[in-house]
Amino acid sequence: MPKLVVLRLGHRPGRDKRLTTHVGLVARAFGADGVIISDVRDKSVELSIQNVVENWGGPFFIKTGEPWRKTIDEWKRAGGQVVHLTMYGIPVQDKIEEIRKSESNKLVVVGAEKVPREIFDLADHNVSVTQQPHSEAAALAVFLHMFFNGEELYKKFSNARLSVAPQERGKVVVEAA
Amino acid sequence: MPKLVVLRLGHRPGRDKRLTTHVGLVARAFGADGVIISDVRDKSVELSIQNVVENWGGPFFIKTGEPWRKTIDEWKRAGGQVVHLTMYGIPVQDKIEEIRKSESNKLVVVGAEKVPREIFDLADHNVSVTQQPHSEAAALAVFLHMFFNGEELYKKFSNARLSVAPQERGKVVVEAA
Repeated sequence: MPKLVVLRLGHRPGRDKRLTTHVGLVARAFGADGVIISDVRDKSVELSIQNVVENWGGPFFIKTGEPWRKTIDEWKRAGGQVVHLTMYGIPVQDKIEEIRKSESNKLVVVGAEKVPREIFDLADHNVSVTQQPHSEAAALAVFLHMFFNGEELYKKFSNARLSVAPQERGKVVVEAA
Repeated sequence: MPKLVVLRLGHRPGRDKRLTTHVGLVARAFGADGVIISDVRDKSVELSIQNVVENWGGPFFIKTGEPWRKTIDEWKRAGGQVVHLTMYGIPVQDKIEEIRKSESNKLVVVGAEKVPREIFDLADHNVSVTQQPHSEAAALAVFLHMFFNGEELYKKFSNARLSVAPQERGKVVVEAA
């Protein structure tokens, strides 16, 4: 299986903490191998994600403070592809098969409000999940759901201390012995 | 076509402004008719959403400050169904066909961190989009994508002042004459 890693651009500590945490949790829940938060270190986002991995299982990694250009350069040099999610790109429904068919590792880039122009040029694919303004967490989730063909919904996580036993009503969380 | 409206519970002005705005924008972008923010008025979220509707088209409504119990009671009294998205519910992939088949209007409820216990009982369906913690914006997007069978990706909005012309690279926004 090729690897799939999410690169989050433009994180501003404090202001973006919750949204970036959501992006990281979506990456994990929908089958990515890890998330890289570019350019700024943010211990608090790292801890939130690591805490979920400890409780709900993995494997899943988080790194913060990597310069985005270095991440993208190394990824491409190693033969990986870069997919940039942007409302200005080609509709995901027209691109997803081509992206899915290629065997190379995928770096899925999601920006915050402003994305450096070079990203559009460095990306192998600029892909839009609707042509409307909405949410990077949502765009990432729908992209991964389409990329993994819905199989991510059945994903099992290793070394989970907690898991949900699905119920028609109410909450049942099972703790591993 | 039955109506589909999103009900956002537990919004805290200030702290939740961006996430609730994302939930509203996801509702619009993925084909819902409107969003109701329960219990608290929040002019600033209303304006953000109305501003997007004015620029990118509609129809789409936002209401804030409606008591959730009243919204749900009236919805059910009018014959509508209530679908509550929660990581503790039945996997969406096992429920979506049944939900899609019914002709009644849908109220899709998404909570913040704590959801009143009664919601689980009042809902016709408690549905999970993965059994993992992630993001209500993402859960809503994937639910709507599955509910509308991907057709929402082709949705046209009326009276849009702005629209995107999809590009392999770069941004092209078209302004209506």
